[in-house]
Amino acid sequence: MKSTALKPSKTPLKVIPIGGLGEIGMNCMILEADEEILVIDCGLLFSDLDHFGVEFIIPDFTYLRDRKDKIKGIFLTHGHEDHIGALGFALKSGIDAPIYCSTFTSLLVRERLKEYDLNDKVDMRVFKMGDQIQFKQFKVTTASVNHSIVDAAALIIDTSVGKIIHTGDFKIDPVPFIGTELDRNVFKKAGDEGVLLLLSDSTNAEQHEHSMSEGGIYPKFEQLLAAAEGLVVISMFASNVARMSQIFTLAKKMKKKIAVCGRSMNQNIALAQEIKYIHDVQDVLVNLDELKNYPRNELIVLSTGCQGEYRAALARMSIGEDKNITLQQGDLVLMSSKMIPGNERAISKVINELFKRGAKVLYESVHELHVSGHACQPELKEMLKLVRPKFFIPIHGEYRHLVHHADLARETGITDDRIQIVTNGSVVELTPDSCKVTDKLEETRVLIEGREGSEMTKLVLKDRRKLGETGVVFTLMVRNKESRLIISGPEVILKGIVNEAQEGWLIEEAKNIVKKIVEEYESNINRGEGESDLQEDVRVELRRFFNQNLGKKPVVVPIVLEM
Amino acid sequence: MKSTALKPSKTPLKVIPIGGLGEIGMNCMILEADEEILVIDCGLLFSDLDHFGVEFIIPDFTYLRDRKDKIKGIFLTHGHEDHIGALGFALKSGIDAPIYCSTFTSLLVRERLKEYDLNDKVDMRVFKMGDQIQFKQFKVTTASVNHSIVDAAALIIDTSVGKIIHTGDFKIDPVPFIGTELDRNVFKKAGDEGVLLLLSDSTNAEQHEHSMSEGGIYPKFEQLLAAAEGLVVISMFASNVARMSQIFTLAKKMKKKIAVCGRSMNQNIALAQEIKYIHDVQDVLVNLDELKNYPRNELIVLSTGCQGEYRAALARMSIGEDKNITLQQGDLVLMSSKMIPGNERAISKVINELFKRGAKVLYESVHELHVSGHACQPELKEMLKLVRPKFFIPIHGEYRHLVHHADLARETGITDDRIQIVTNGSVVELTPDSCKVTDKLEETRVLIEGREGSEMTKLVLKDRRKLGETGVVFTLMVRNKESRLIISGPEVILKGIVNEAQEGWLIEEAKNIVKKIVEEYESNINRGEGESDLQEDVRVELRRFFNQNLGKKPVVVPIVLEM
Repeated sequence: MKSTALKPSKTPLKVIPIGGLGEIGMNCMILEADEEILVIDCGLLFSDLDHFGVEFIIPDFTYLRDRKDKIKGIFLTHGHEDHIGALGFALKSGIDAPIYCSTFTSLLVRERLKEYDLNDKVDMRVFKMGDQIQFKQFKVTTASVNHSIVDAAALIIDTSVGKIIHTGDFKIDPVPFIGTELDRNVFKKAGDEGVLLLLSDSTNAEQHEHSMSEGGIYPKFEQLLAAAEGLVVISMFASNVARMSQIFTLAKKMKKKIAVCGRSMNQNIALAQEIKYIHDVQDVLVNLDELKNYPRNELIVLSTGCQGEYRAALARMSIGEDKNITLQQGDLVLMSSKMIPGNERAISKVINELFKRGAKVLYESVHELHVSGHACQPELKEMLKLVRPKFFIPIHGEYRHLVHHADLARETGITDDRIQIVTNGSVVELTPDSCKVTDKLEETRVLIEGREGSEMTKLVLKDRRKLGETGVVFTLMVRNKESRLIISGPEVILKGIVNEAQEGWLIEEAKNIVKKIVEEYESNINRGEGESDLQEDVRVELRRFFNQNLGKKPVVVPIVLEM
Repeated sequence: MKSTALKPSKTPLKVIPIGGLGEIGMNCMILEADEEILVIDCGLLFSDLDHFGVEFIIPDFTYLRDRKDKIKGIFLTHGHEDHIGALGFALKSGIDAPIYCSTFTSLLVRERLKEYDLNDKVDMRVFKMGDQIQFKQFKVTTASVNHSIVDAAALIIDTSVGKIIHTGDFKIDPVPFIGTELDRNVFKKAGDEGVLLLLSDSTNAEQHEHSMSEGGIYPKFEQLLAAAEGLVVISMFASNVARMSQIFTLAKKMKKKIAVCGRSMNQNIALAQEIKYIHDVQDVLVNLDELKNYPRNELIVLSTGCQGEYRAALARMSIGEDKNITLQQGDLVLMSSKMIPGNERAISKVINELFKRGAKVLYESVHELHVSGHACQPELKEMLKLVRPKFFIPIHGEYRHLVHHADLARETGITDDRIQIVTNGSVVELTPDSCKVTDKLEETRVLIEGREGSEMTKLVLKDRRKLGETGVVFTLMVRNKESRLIISGPEVILKGIVNEAQEGWLIEEAKNIVKKIVEEYESNINRGEGESDLQEDVRVELRRFFNQNLGKKPVVVPIVLEM
């Protein structure tokens, strides 16, 4: 496609991250000229709040919804959930623009959108690496990068004020197993032409050593599979096609069979076959119920659940509740993944249970069988040196990661005044010679609950937290409409307050307290002194009572029924 | 004290762990002969359930309570909470025996028991390392070990069936800074005499390298303190007196001042001074409100909160809410601690906030300023080789740690049949030539809640979890005692279910459902067909209704008031 001149923007070009800066997850970046908006990534954040019913968190799309006619494209750098997982919610909220992504990403998006019956309603435009997509005020050139998922892209974006590079998530991997090493020349060439702003992945900015190569896993697996005395279960992230491909290659070479356990793993292997990243595996793949037909030490099971998810295949195996796989002495479980912070206890529980089954388990702290998909300090510096940007904004990381990435930029000679550490909601205005925060959107995140994906306010979360921490006390009475006197009750019901053994006296005591309040209330009325706030008095007094006796103030719900 | 012969036990000697095996925390071990019981450690486990009001978890003392007259002593190997924290609950439950512990441990126990007004009621017997305590059926010899707290002891216990060694928590540290390196000869001598059973700390059984020396921290601190441009905050475990002592030594040498922030830190520094582990610090120690009187780069603040505890000093500083310390550009925060699994997110949040204050923060993943207090593989093997036990039981660790420690024992030549991996509640019977599990106590743990330290059953926890995950629906009706007909209601109240915006129609719909059920119920009565279970029908139907509309089944509390 022939590139045409870009229409200048009457307003300064705005760069607005609404997710992924100041946290790891829910990546979403807005590029805004006066007439056009591009969105880069649309991800979700898996929450550690799920015990309050929160499944995940997504960016607040209000700013985009209010400008939806300006949105000309949503670019997805790759197919991980923290880059595509919120897409369905964006579309449902009324945002409707073409979605630009690479082949494998497009397949994952398709599957994801099926869940919302949106897959036919989107205008999906699949790009190849190196493609140029021309808009009125933007020209986007896609560039291949290495990551823990195939078909990951960086974006080189020409604007009327200058060139912007968004690395997406990336690493530099000489042996990615699928695809080739990131082409430094593409970034160097951009650097030679002059880059106004670099937005680069900070996830591993604290890691000193160069990231390990995906291909480096191959000999480790080969050795372990060759020595296997029993069944080998390999648990890993279901989106890492390159790693799955390595295992298929080894299985073929070693004449072993592979069975696949877990929905997402099955789906992604099917998708990878659809585009030939995994192929000719008919002699290798067997069904789970066929496992018994083969010698145990010729079997490999690819399994989900490497984060200790209690519903996943690996967790089921660990407690002997998988209907096809019963682990035994001599079996080997390989955790080919990292422990995502917050999941350690769940993962550790699964590992302990696997050991109790008699299986041997290899994992992070005893035997490294995983490599990160994110660039570490040497690679981050190399990217900075190739691109030589005028301005630099570290993206994709908690604040501490952004700070460390900024330090690296300084080491490559970018002066403080040219580095901006910004977090979600910051409005960065970009001109050919300035890059500064001029405004801050109220940073809001949307809590998503349940399989219906309904939104949940902070107030509801607060209620749940309180209920979960202290339990709830209900009191009920019936009041005569006319006389205003209490004609029945009080009843007191406790939920999640104390052990049944103690409930008896607490309920009696609570009733007495309410009765006293009622007497006071009724005598006021009888004396014609008007009505005190019965419910509020009950609430206050009972909270005091429970605090005195249990050292906590439960939720108190006083109900007065009129009749 | 002269040792006398030990009275043989008519029953086999029992070794019963009721905490600490299969988990890290709440260590508690029972040694039982026919006439005497010794208890080793009495710890608690900090819970990751605290969002359900659970403060911590302790062992179930039923077995001990039922045999309390047999208990001749409670030995505490050292003063960490996971070894002494449940003592108050044991005593309150009626267990009353002399408490044997080292000097510093006794001070920590004293302070802990003050909280329960039990400090005067205990028979505390302080031992020195090497002391022998003679019972009828046991003789306990104490031996000094290195650990991340001073005055840590191992126990060498002579019984009529043979010698048992309990290492407590230990490491081998050539430069412990306070005290001396663990004396190998003590353990070798026991080995020469013949050890029937070794019980050894497994916490670091996955770590290949020898543990780092506490003294190795000194030059790191010296370098960082010398280079300090501003205030230096050092956050660490408040019980690590040796580390605090290093910092005081450095402060003296460098003419810096130290202020102490946090209750437990202040307490433990006072205790350490009480026994001269920290001394002559009057020129060094300053009050927090005096900080302003000194040049900022001459100030060191020792602070609690290294685990991200939101009420602790460091968390307050991180959000600018500490009344004495306001961090600024140029300040340095040293996290001299490890991230305890489960705390990563909380710690990370504090670190991010500290960076936002402009402070520089050094922590585990960027600059190691902590050493573990637990023996790693080389030390564990050395202990096994010194002691050369007939039987081996790995203690203090999750199941995976016990498995790895067992592997190490095998490497030192202990055959499988002489190694027992046991978990909490296992009853191990020990004879001169056998060590086997003969019984299993129902493994129960006691959940402790709130500042009153009241017990909480699994049922209450279940209720809270459900309330916290889904919220609660409350329906109320009034029924006429005689006619059995509903004379008022239904009322429907939602707590923690949905956003107010959606509540309206949900409540209306729910009411209609209940009304239909009531109609059905009343027509049955009117047709003389007897009474259906109104409450149960309401519960079932409403759970179905909410599941259809919100994809979850909340707690439903249907109340029918009679009048």
